Amino acid sequence: MVFDYRKIFREIADEITDMNDLGHVADYIPELKHIDPDKFGVHLTDITDQHYDFGDASEKFSIQSIAKVLSLILAFKNEGVSIWNRVGVEPSGSPFNSLVQLEYEKGIPRNPFINAGALVVSDILISYLDDPKKEFISFVRELAQSEDIHYNPQVAESEKATGDRNSALVHFMKSFDNIENDPNEVLDFYFYLCSVEMNCRELSRAFLFLANYGTDPLTDNRILTPSKAKRVNAIMQMCGFYDEAGDFAFKVGLPGKSGVGGGIAAVLPGEYSIAVWSPRLNNRGNSYKAMKFLEKFTTKTNTSIF
Amino acid sequence: MVFDYRKIFREIADEITDMNDLGHVADYIPELKHIDPDKFGVHLTDITDQHYDFGDASEKFSIQSIAKVLSLILAFKNEGVSIWNRVGVEPSGSPFNSLVQLEYEKGIPRNPFINAGALVVSDILISYLDDPKKEFISFVRELAQSEDIHYNPQVAESEKATGDRNSALVHFMKSFDNIENDPNEVLDFYFYLCSVEMNCRELSRAFLFLANYGTDPLTDNRILTPSKAKRVNAIMQMCGFYDEAGDFAFKVGLPGKSGVGGGIAAVLPGEYSIAVWSPRLNNRGNSYKAMKFLEKFTTKTNTSIF
Amino acid sequence: MVFDYRKIFREIADEITDMNDLGHVADYIPELKHIDPDKFGVHLTDITDQHYDFGDASEKFSIQSIAKVLSLILAFKNEGVSIWNRVGVEPSGSPFNSLVQLEYEKGIPRNPFINAGALVVSDILISYLDDPKKEFISFVRELAQSEDIHYNPQVAESEKATGDRNSALVHFMKSFDNIENDPNEVLDFYFYLCSVEMNCRELSRAFLFLANYGTDPLTDNRILTPSKAKRVNAIMQMCGFYDEAGDFAFKVGLPGKSGVGGGIAAVLPGEYSIAVWSPRLNNRGNSYKAMKFLEKFTTKTNTSIF
Amino acid sequence: MVFDYRKIFREIADEITDMNDLGHVADYIPELKHIDPDKFGVHLTDITDQHYDFGDASEKFSIQSIAKVLSLILAFKNEGVSIWNRVGVEPSGSPFNSLVQLEYEKGIPRNPFINAGALVVSDILISYLDDPKKEFISFVRELAQSEDIHYNPQVAESEKATGDRNSALVHFMKSFDNIENDPNEVLDFYFYLCSVEMNCRELSRAFLFLANYGTDPLTDNRILTPSKAKRVNAIMQMCGFYDEAGDFAFKVGLPGKSGVGGGIAAVLPGEYSIAVWSPRLNNRGNSYKAMKFLEKFTTKTNTSIF
Repeated sequence: MVFDYRKIFREIADEITDMNDLGHVADYIPELKHIDPDKFGVHLTDITDQHYDFGDASEKFSIQSIAKVLSLILAFKNEGVSIWNRVGVEPSGSPFNSLVQLEYEKGIPRNPFINAGALVVSDILISYLDDPKKEFISFVRELAQSEDIHYNPQVAESEKATGDRNSALVHFMKSFDNIENDPNEVLDFYFYLCSVEMNCRELSRAFLFLANYGTDPLTDNRILTPSKAKRVNAIMQMCGFYDEAGDFAFKVGLPGKSGVGGGIAAVLPGEYSIAVWSPRLNNRGNSYKAMKFLEKFTTKTNTSIF
Repeated sequence: MVFDYRKIFREIADEITDMNDLGHVADYIPELKHIDPDKFGVHLTDITDQHYDFGDASEKFSIQSIAKVLSLILAFKNEGVSIWNRVGVEPSGSPFNSLVQLEYEKGIPRNPFINAGALVVSDILISYLDDPKKEFISFVRELAQSEDIHYNPQVAESEKATGDRNSALVHFMKSFDNIENDPNEVLDFYFYLCSVEMNCRELSRAFLFLANYGTDPLTDNRILTPSKAKRVNAIMQMCGFYDEAGDFAFKVGLPGKSGVGGGIAAVLPGEYSIAVWSPRLNNRGNSYKAMKFLEKFTTKTNTSIF
Repeated sequence: MVFDYRKIFREIADEITDMNDLGHVADYIPELKHIDPDKFGVHLTDITDQHYDFGDASEKFSIQSIAKVLSLILAFKNEGVSIWNRVGVEPSGSPFNSLVQLEYEKGIPRNPFINAGALVVSDILISYLDDPKKEFISFVRELAQSEDIHYNPQVAESEKATGDRNSALVHFMKSFDNIENDPNEVLDFYFYLCSVEMNCRELSRAFLFLANYGTDPLTDNRILTPSKAKRVNAIMQMCGFYDEAGDFAFKVGLPGKSGVGGGIAAVLPGEYSIAVWSPRLNNRGNSYKAMKFLEKFTTKTNTSIF
Repeated sequence: MVFDYRKIFREIADEITDMNDLGHVADYIPELKHIDPDKFGVHLTDITDQHYDFGDASEKFSIQSIAKVLSLILAFKNEGVSIWNRVGVEPSGSPFNSLVQLEYEKGIPRNPFINAGALVVSDILISYLDDPKKEFISFVRELAQSEDIHYNPQVAESEKATGDRNSALVHFMKSFDNIENDPNEVLDFYFYLCSVEMNCRELSRAFLFLANYGTDPLTDNRILTPSKAKRVNAIMQMCGFYDEAGDFAFKVGLPGKSGVGGGIAAVLPGEYSIAVWSPRLNNRGNSYKAMKFLEKFTTKTNTSIF
């Protein structure tokens, strides 16, 4: 089907502008709450190199947990299937029992997108890479085909200063021998990942290979095998939205991942990759307007995996 | 893509025959353990009325939890979106804390496919239908286009005799005012649903409309709106395999639902509906060989929603 | 030490009269909320048959969970130490996880004073006694040396009507084979126990043998062996006040048991038995004023087991 | 009552010698597992300065968690009742949910004897004391009336090396603002406390004031007010034996505290303080033989608080 995506973006943007944004900008990290809450951007890249954007699509924002997909991809590429010995692929249920679940399951996090899982993935990358930060950022730049991607040291510092719960998780998993490296090094790398800044265009470009069975359709670089790419999509589908994964599948119907910076990246296999950004979060930590936008978008274009 | 599905079935069946079936026939219900554990059947129906089958595809078996999809469809049809006030759409996490989660979430089950959720759906149907059992079985017969579908009274009786935990769930939810009818009536209807017997052909036929955006492609009957059909698929994707939903998404990549009778029904939207049956279950309660079969099938045919 | 207990009662009562009673009368059972919330009574019986009372000490009230001690005594007398195979003696921690704990511990309740434990004790008595209700009430009358003790059928009926959570517990334990009799019969007997009505004089008299190493000091009847009496006291100490057992030990320092009717019975081994009644409950379900009264009483008389 | 305690010790020791010690020496700390598992010592000090000992009563061992009572006493002395804003006095229920409980209760540990609680007490002491280690050890020496009390640096180091779970707890509580000082400093002090070594004589002497309403009966030094001493005893009663507190109350009936070094200290208010040591632990982490010894001892002497 051929859509005039840009026209649809405008229609939805109009509907959304009038909508009361019930969300709140993330404030647990001081650096994040200074963002202009009314920013709104979207960028869609399809596998034939067509681009459609709207609003603040070229403005950088903190990708936060969306980085967990990028680090998973790099770790999966390096470690292969044995990565699943150290982290599961099941959704995590409600957040209130994350720690008891980690205890019950002997320090193996349920999936790579809860914090505990992303910390294990960080630990794996530290064991593999000579210079983890440098190699990670190079990998992201290559995926996004943009050299202008950096991390924000103030955000990283700010996360570290409020990261007691993440420290608790690393030490707890270390007590189960599921962390190999120095806890402080793991935390430092993890906060680095989360503080990377990208714009919607770069994000949708970086995720494009996941809409094309593991191969970047524009450079023909194979990033992951089709089977591995499918698996990353499946994990995004099942675990990409904290305790709202079911609702996102239900209303939007695309594999995707959100971050508390207000971004969401999602893909329709065989078709496109899309990134949306709006800083105010709903009470489950996902962007209020970006969720609404994607719900309307997949409804109007009738594009969904289901 | 056009595949000779029957040839692929034979190939996979050969590979699977040599495989050591590590599963065990469900034994918590006496009636179920008398089944021949080596039975194996598969039936694929595509939306153009092509049929492909293999093995014991015409033999009846107890559909068990697969009935939860059928009752959800009927309740969703009747009650509409307000059904989601009484049952959620989020995966449930590990089973060990199902009760504490139900307590934490004030008697609202996480999704319609855990037992608590299916009991609420049963309660909803009892409130709507004049003769719940009769109307339910008629609905299933219409979906499957087969009059020869019945429930097994011995299995229903057997479930009732061992149903203390389900009784506990109904009474617990009633204490939160999320059960309207007499607990015994709810349980009786629920055990009735689970004891319905179908074969692979009927099951794949009954699920076909979910592969066709809510409309039965062969009769043109609209069962659900496209939006509702998409939502049922999303819930199957997220919650259809107990604590193995992530693994099924990861390895198979189709929305589907399993039952402890050894059956699995799954759909590829826009293409086909498939039912597989093999009685031995893995340690998470899903058919060991049916899972393996579907994993190989979606890999060989490269059909997956991801 | 010899105290003029009656004078101390008056002193404390004066202090308590001026106190703002922050509690609320139990309202989950309709019958209980019709009680005059300003009732206050206390009766102390010492092992030499001295009696000291104050206020509404001769007025009947619903003993509710205090009955759990009386049923435990009768079951322990009959069943002996094998009772501890079916119910534990450990405090239960915070109430929010009672069900998951019961699941974790395979249907064995942590102690006989949480509802699950009292239901198991009721089940044990039903197995032992020919006419459980009649034999139980006779036993209580003998302990209290009063024929004028009855149950309140309206309260029992009222409890039954709101007893869905207790139904859930019985069915749940039956699924672990820790209930032998018909769940409805167990619940009926349990609600009967809880609806027994006594006054402070009768309650303190009934508990007197626990202050005298198992023998009623006034009749010389041996109710329990010294060892068993000591054990009942230990369980009251550890588990007698829901999630406030530590606080009661900490502030009062006597083995005792409370009920949501506003009563508390407590003993000082070698000295006395005391019953206090005030209907308004604190937020943990124990009588606000009776707790305060006993705290002041053990402080002023310097009587405590610690 | 006057007993020839030494004769009773010998009797019980004889009975216990023939007993198959089903326990296992703690091995999670390398330093602890080198201990001779057959060591056995007991020392009773009564409030009139009579001493009774048996076996290895003068041999030093690692007091481990018994130190939590000594640090609580020092913190309670300094901080007064406001200590209870930061740590509770309720038993903790089964250990499997310690972390979720801490989360549920917003980082306030249930009592000062679970690790989380003892870490908060350590944090409080660090805030109060200029030189925490030196002042703590001086306080213990004064209580025990012995200058020959030291900590074992190898044990402290060993605990630190295996202390990931304690690190997790401190960071987790810091995320709830219930830790004021540097997590590493808190852990270092905590491991110091636990590695103090004492013998049975010193331990029973140090606890003697708790058997005498807060005043050392031999020096007349007031350590705590009677009310505070009673409260420390109540907390030992309710929380002194991990998940076996109910069983200890039930079988022994004295306030006390155990450590994984195999020691137990207990008091009978108004009478005596007793310390027993035997290194093999039962499956709940308490000394197998010391528990048995105390059960027999309180039975034979008919001394119990109940």
